[in-house]
Amino acid sequence: MPEAPFAIPPLKRIAIIGMGLIGSSIARGARRQNIASEIVISDLSPIVRDRVVELRLADRVEARPEEAVIDADLVILCVPVGVAGDVAKQMASGLKSDAVVSDVGSVKAAVLRDVRPFLPASVGFVPAHPVAGTEHSGPDAGFAELFVNRWCILTPAENEPANAIEMVRNVWRALGSNVEVMSAAHHDLVLAITSHVPHLIAYNIVGTAADLEEVTRSEVIKFSAGGFRDFTRIAASDPTMWRDIFLHNKGAVLEMLSRFKKDLDAAQRMIEDENGPGLFELFTRTRAIRRGIIELGQETAAPDFGRRGAQNSPGGS
Amino acid sequence: MPEAPFAIPPLKRIAIIGMGLIGSSIARGARRQNIASEIVISDLSPIVRDRVVELRLADRVEARPEEAVIDADLVILCVPVGVAGDVAKQMASGLKSDAVVSDVGSVKAAVLRDVRPFLPASVGFVPAHPVAGTEHSGPDAGFAELFVNRWCILTPAENEPANAIEMVRNVWRALGSNVEVMSAAHHDLVLAITSHVPHLIAYNIVGTAADLEEVTRSEVIKFSAGGFRDFTRIAASDPTMWRDIFLHNKGAVLEMLSRFKKDLDAAQRMIEDENGPGLFELFTRTRAIRRGIIELGQETAAPDFGRRGAQNSPGGS
Repeated sequence: MPEAPFAIPPLKRIAIIGMGLIGSSIARGARRQNIASEIVISDLSPIVRDRVVELRLADRVEARPEEAVIDADLVILCVPVGVAGDVAKQMASGLKSDAVVSDVGSVKAAVLRDVRPFLPASVGFVPAHPVAGTEHSGPDAGFAELFVNRWCILTPAENEPANAIEMVRNVWRALGSNVEVMSAAHHDLVLAITSHVPHLIAYNIVGTAADLEEVTRSEVIKFSAGGFRDFTRIAASDPTMWRDIFLHNKGAVLEMLSRFKKDLDAAQRMIEDENGPGLFELFTRTRAIRRGIIELGQETAAPDFGRRGAQNSPGGS
Repeated sequence: MPEAPFAIPPLKRIAIIGMGLIGSSIARGARRQNIASEIVISDLSPIVRDRVVELRLADRVEARPEEAVIDADLVILCVPVGVAGDVAKQMASGLKSDAVVSDVGSVKAAVLRDVRPFLPASVGFVPAHPVAGTEHSGPDAGFAELFVNRWCILTPAENEPANAIEMVRNVWRALGSNVEVMSAAHHDLVLAITSHVPHLIAYNIVGTAADLEEVTRSEVIKFSAGGFRDFTRIAASDPTMWRDIFLHNKGAVLEMLSRFKKDLDAAQRMIEDENGPGLFELFTRTRAIRRGIIELGQETAAPDFGRRGAQNSPGGS
C-alpha cells in the first residue's frame, strides 16, 4: 500500500457503523494508515461483533451506534442504504457538535434525503461512495488494499463546509483512493449505467438460466466458461445491499434500463433480419470503451487476468 | 500442461485451416503434445501466414486449403462459422479418402448443415466446440494451455463412424480438455444461454453506455469497476466471429433472448412496484448457480481471481 500522497492530521477517534466488506476494509486500512488514534466499531449483530473482537479490527466495540459515535471526529455509516436513515436517527444524540458524518452507500440522493434530517446542523455530512468491492460479504471478507487506486466519489450538498469535505477526501486518499466530487443526482445516473443496470442484467440472466427446462442446471454450470461465468460472479453479490440499491435509485435505474431494452430490441431485430453488417458494427464500436478502460489502468489487457494458472481464462464462446 | 490421460497414436499429419486464437492455440498444443508428426497450416491472409512462419507454428504453410489438407489424417477448420461451408467446398478435392474433418465453431447445427454436403462420404466429420477462449484474436494470441481443464463438446451426426469420433476425442484429451458428446441442436441451445445471449447483452449494454448524453464516456470508463468492466471485456471479443454466431444460431438465440426479456420485464416491474421481497428473492437464488461453478472447479472463490496485485478487484457497486 502506498504512503498517503500528503499527510493528514491523524484523527483522534473514528467510528465505523456496520462491519460488512466495506466497513471492515475501512477498519483495516485505517489501522494500517494510522488514520485515527482510536477506532470504534458498532454492528447490530452480536456474532459480527464477536468476530470483530477476534479479528482485532477495533479498539472498542459497541452494540449501540449512539455509544460508538461519542466524541468521534468522523463517523462512517457502512450499512445497507435502506437503513441509513434509521441508524442516523439512532446515533444522532451521541454525535459531538463538530463531528463529520459520512457513508459508503452505492446510491447517494436517497442517502442525502434520508440521513441529513436527523443530523444536527453543526455536524458536517459528506456522503461517499467507494467504487470498489468483491462479491463477498462480512467482516472476514475485508482487506486493507480494497480501495487502493480505486475511485471514491463524494456527493456533499452545496452548502456543506469545505473543511468537512476536505477531511473526508483526505481519509479516502489515505486509504489509497482517487477522489472525485459530484452531485448526488449525477452520481446516481452514472452508477445506474456503470453498475446498477449491469448487476440487474447479470442477476436476471442467471435467473433465466436457472429456470430452463431444456437445459439442465448442471449443463449451465459445466459450460459457463463461454461468458456466463462472469455474470454469475456479479450475481453473487450481497442480496440485501442490491435490493436496497434498486429500491433507492429507482428513477435512474428505470431510465437507463429502458434505454438498454430499446437497444436490445434493435439488436434482436438485427438477428431476426440477419443483418450481418449491423451486428458487425455493434460488435466493433464497443471495443473503443474497452480500450479506454485498459488505458486508464483500471484493467489489464492480459487475456486472463492472471487466471491462467487456475485455467480459468474467460471469453470463450 | 498435464500428460495426456492415455496415449493416442500420434497422427502422421494434421492440417489446421485458419490461424486465429483457437487455431494457433491448437497448433501450439499439438506441437507440445506431439499429436502429429507434421503440422500443416493454411490461412487466407498472407500477413498471417508470414507470422505463422515467424512464430514457427507449422512444419509447412500453404495459401490454399486444398493443398494444406493433402494426406492429412485430421483436418481442423478454425475459421469463422460463416465461411466454414465455403472453405470445406474449396478443400474437399484435396482430402484423402479416410481423412477425418473437424472444426471449432461456436454453433454446430449450421456447421453440420453447411460443411457435410461438400465432404466425400468416406470422410469422417466430427464437429467440435472447445468452450475456451479469450477476448483476443490472431496467431499471436494463442497459447498451448488454452484448452487445459476446459470442456470440448463434440456433435457428430448419428451415423458417424465411432473411430472418427474417437480420434477427435483423443486429440482434445491430449490438448488437455474434458470431452462431452451431444447433438448439435442441444449444443446450440445450451450455448445460447451460457454464451451467446450473455455476449449479446454485454455488447448491448456497452453500446447503450457509449451513446449516453448525460453521462460522459470518460465517466463510464472511470467508474467501470462497479460491474460494467466485466461486460466490456466480454464485449471486446472478435466481431466477425460473433456476427457469424448470431447469424447461424438465430433460432436458439432468439428463443433464449425472449425468455431473458420476459424475466427482465418482471424484474423491472418489481423495481417500479418497490417490491423489496421479490428483488431479494431474485438476488438470493442466483447464488446457487455460482456455488455450483465454484464447486466444479471452473472458477475460484477468491474475491479477485489474482487481480489484487493489479488492484482490479471486481464486483463493487
